[in-house]
Amino acid sequence: MSADIPLLPFEQGRHLLSVLQFDRQGLQALLNLAKAVDPIAKRQAVCTVLDGAMLCSLFFEPSTRTRLSFESAFLRLGGEVTTTTGFTFSSMAKGESIHDTARVVSGYSDVLVVRHPEEGSVAQFAAASTVPVVNAGDGTGEHPSQALLDVYTLESELGARGKSVDGCTIAILGDLKYGRTVHSLMKMLSLYEHVSFRLFAPPSLELPQSVADYAQARGHSVTVLDTVVEAVSSADVVYATRVQRERMTEELAQANAKGDLLNRAMLAEADNLGVVIMHPLPRDSRPDAYDLSTDVDDLPGLSIFKQTDNGLNVRMAIFLTTLGVGLDAVTLTTKQRPWKATLRP
Amino acid sequence: MSADIPLLPFEQGRHLLSVLQFDRQGLQALLNLAKAVDPIAKRQAVCTVLDGAMLCSLFFEPSTRTRLSFESAFLRLGGEVTTTTGFTFSSMAKGESIHDTARVVSGYSDVLVVRHPEEGSVAQFAAASTVPVVNAGDGTGEHPSQALLDVYTLESELGARGKSVDGCTIAILGDLKYGRTVHSLMKMLSLYEHVSFRLFAPPSLELPQSVADYAQARGHSVTVLDTVVEAVSSADVVYATRVQRERMTEELAQANAKGDLLNRAMLAEADNLGVVIMHPLPRDSRPDAYDLSTDVDDLPGLSIFKQTDNGLNVRMAIFLTTLGVGLDAVTLTTKQRPWKATLRP
Amino acid sequence: MSADIPLLPFEQGRHLLSVLQFDRQGLQALLNLAKAVDPIAKRQAVCTVLDGAMLCSLFFEPSTRTRLSFESAFLRLGGEVTTTTGFTFSSMAKGESIHDTARVVSGYSDVLVVRHPEEGSVAQFAAASTVPVVNAGDGTGEHPSQALLDVYTLESELGARGKSVDGCTIAILGDLKYGRTVHSLMKMLSLYEHVSFRLFAPPSLELPQSVADYAQARGHSVTVLDTVVEAVSSADVVYATRVQRERMTEELAQANAKGDLLNRAMLAEADNLGVVIMHPLPRDSRPDAYDLSTDVDDLPGLSIFKQTDNGLNVRMAIFLTTLGVGLDAVTLTTKQRPWKATLRP
Repeated sequence: MSADIPLLPFEQGRHLLSVLQFDRQGLQALLNLAKAVDPIAKRQAVCTVLDGAMLCSLFFEPSTRTRLSFESAFLRLGGEVTTTTGFTFSSMAKGESIHDTARVVSGYSDVLVVRHPEEGSVAQFAAASTVPVVNAGDGTGEHPSQALLDVYTLESELGARGKSVDGCTIAILGDLKYGRTVHSLMKMLSLYEHVSFRLFAPPSLELPQSVADYAQARGHSVTVLDTVVEAVSSADVVYATRVQRERMTEELAQANAKGDLLNRAMLAEADNLGVVIMHPLPRDSRPDAYDLSTDVDDLPGLSIFKQTDNGLNVRMAIFLTTLGVGLDAVTLTTKQRPWKATLRP
Repeated sequence: MSADIPLLPFEQGRHLLSVLQFDRQGLQALLNLAKAVDPIAKRQAVCTVLDGAMLCSLFFEPSTRTRLSFESAFLRLGGEVTTTTGFTFSSMAKGESIHDTARVVSGYSDVLVVRHPEEGSVAQFAAASTVPVVNAGDGTGEHPSQALLDVYTLESELGARGKSVDGCTIAILGDLKYGRTVHSLMKMLSLYEHVSFRLFAPPSLELPQSVADYAQARGHSVTVLDTVVEAVSSADVVYATRVQRERMTEELAQANAKGDLLNRAMLAEADNLGVVIMHPLPRDSRPDAYDLSTDVDDLPGLSIFKQTDNGLNVRMAIFLTTLGVGLDAVTLTTKQRPWKATLRP
Repeated sequence: MSADIPLLPFEQGRHLLSVLQFDRQGLQALLNLAKAVDPIAKRQAVCTVLDGAMLCSLFFEPSTRTRLSFESAFLRLGGEVTTTTGFTFSSMAKGESIHDTARVVSGYSDVLVVRHPEEGSVAQFAAASTVPVVNAGDGTGEHPSQALLDVYTLESELGARGKSVDGCTIAILGDLKYGRTVHSLMKMLSLYEHVSFRLFAPPSLELPQSVADYAQARGHSVTVLDTVVEAVSSADVVYATRVQRERMTEELAQANAKGDLLNRAMLAEADNLGVVIMHPLPRDSRPDAYDLSTDVDDLPGLSIFKQTDNGLNVRMAIFLTTLGVGLDAVTLTTKQRPWKATLRP
């Protein structure tokens, strides 16, 4: 993060740049709000509380899924959206500074969602903006809304099983070195108590020591395992992440030419077919991928699409928070709808 | 069409994938609804019945006109739209399956409009979606909303001339081999009675026998003519389609280096200057094009822009049908507007 | 401008193609309207007067800032927006004429904003449209909304200093040859009385004589100066424009390898640190740029971001005018909002 923007608690009128802007209480408030707007996210009711508010989503690199989720969340609250996507923001190609771009575009909007390929650039953007900026991912840096939707899903899935995030055991698999999702998730889970992290990563993609230290300094256990089966055994949740082939060693690529990172057989061997299964998506389903197999898709704990569905709730809560809208105002502007959002066979 | 999705009648909560989902009664119901919403399509009134509903339009290949028409139709009913266009859907480029993409995006939306360059891929998409999917064209496969707007235009133009689609004579010209528009139209017109098709195609671009068989088996006459003038003589309607130069034989390309597929002189020679003139557009107006000439543009039967205008009506009816909104609800949420949509000289 | 469209006064139901559509009275009416909608532009209130109206923005070349400004203006008035951007409008790539494209797209919309790289093409577009077209820039041709926001900013900044545009002195710097912004601004300012233009341009980028003649014929003084400092001395306003490196002579490029077009030291030397500073943006902030330096950014007269903010007001006034919406209707449909659009430290 750039030094320009101090990481103040995420509240009304504040940018959302980092998971580090939350303490346990602030996190709980946001998750509660996300849960309260569930009828709107699930299309059981229509809300117009953000009538007249304008989101501008600025994606300097493509991330269609994340963009659609943010835009849908804003629209579901009654706001309006303008969009710009792609590598070439025409003014910046002519030498315009991030400062000038941010100042100009913030003059058109009430909140900005910014995605940028370079770490720290979203914070730079925020420093010149006249309206709140939400970080939708900056390179190897932060992607706080992903960590929030992961934690929201953990709470709801563990809660449905009579468990709690406090004291849970979570296996995390895959690229733990470059995967910013994992780093953000572990930092955010460190706000809870007594979480046991069980890690498996291919050679040379191990978790940076600094992230392990961060969790351990806050009283959590971090155990590195040699196999996926060991990591998954006894876990309440398994969080799998894609390993990009270009980041795999020759050796690993060969060893896993036709292998999966995690599949049904491994879960059976670990005697844990009921585990909650999470993944930040996209999942690589090509034949030579080293990722979560689709043969787990009918298991009862599959939660990978619940995560993306929950992204709407969490992003709605982010917008309501920074725009200073309480649940009372949401309720007052929520109404029934004459259309049906159900698919019939 | 993929075998995953059975072609059930198009009703509330159903995908629209194929023209084969209509019988005569279902078609008539949709066309009646399209006609009933004409004041909204023509901007004489504003409708908010889809307030809070979300369309996501996913165009995996560009088709700006079709995309704008669907999006405008949804917006005119009070809904909201998110868009993604272009060949690269970033997640799919990372190996995400159509199943995962469809499941994720459907979680953000209430209805999806999907365009894809490969036949059958929209049906695959629909199989994993949690909300209705409308096929906006899949390669050489289907484009049902185009066939519907063509039939809507036929009904209204023939009706205005005291004629009916039942018993009409329609000349169809151009690329009858690869033109999916022609195939869909002929199948949909086969729901009517005693239609006479008079066909003209350049060598090697003739209508597939299966499509002729389909119409003939349902009691229609299909006649292949040697010249455009013969095909157009005695026709109530002429439906011209673009012949892509890359699909023309060397011989034909040379013969028509400066020729038109259909022009005013041909219509005069056929003694049929008052015929209803249709075309699915775009029309190729380059000097070396083999297409409908612009010299017919002031003839009284020119209906090519009525077709695109009518596309709004038909697409509004499609959305209302699948979202289960009746005309009563539309009427209740329709109101006057303070702005004027007229161009003054 | 094409001869197809006569340049009639800009009123309800008319295209906006050129600055030449304004006389002093028409200009004042538009600027007054732009000022009256300031609470909506500044998000102190929400307006729904354009409920159900549809803007289609068609950008045949990228200009993200201009597009976002037009779209935001329309959305702030309660309308809806569809967008198409990029060099390839798929139908036109298949040989569709501007006439056909314009006719089709205007059938989906209530007003079109068109940007095109070729001079005159927006007027061609307008000739076939069934709804009003706003020119958002056509190559080296016109960009009337930019000139309008410049004049609006001049009025408000000079007004705040107890001065008037009538009788003011404005220094204009940079590429005066190719910069259409400068030409449009000088023509529009020629509607006022006794403006003194003080010009500085690098060699070979001097103002065309026709533009100087236009202003002088209307009673204004046009003086060419040898240095920026001379031009800026005694000016009420300085209007700097970017000089594209590819348009600079070898000699100039070398001489200004590390120089600015205008910076704080020059304003100090001219004894005019309080001057109103304007720029059409984007500003080139790369190390080798020959443009306005960022070292002026904390001067009290810096108005470059006020210009872009004011763009919203002016574009809202353009839409209200062409759609025939009076201030009464705006006021009737304006209401308070429950969300807060302020950034907190």
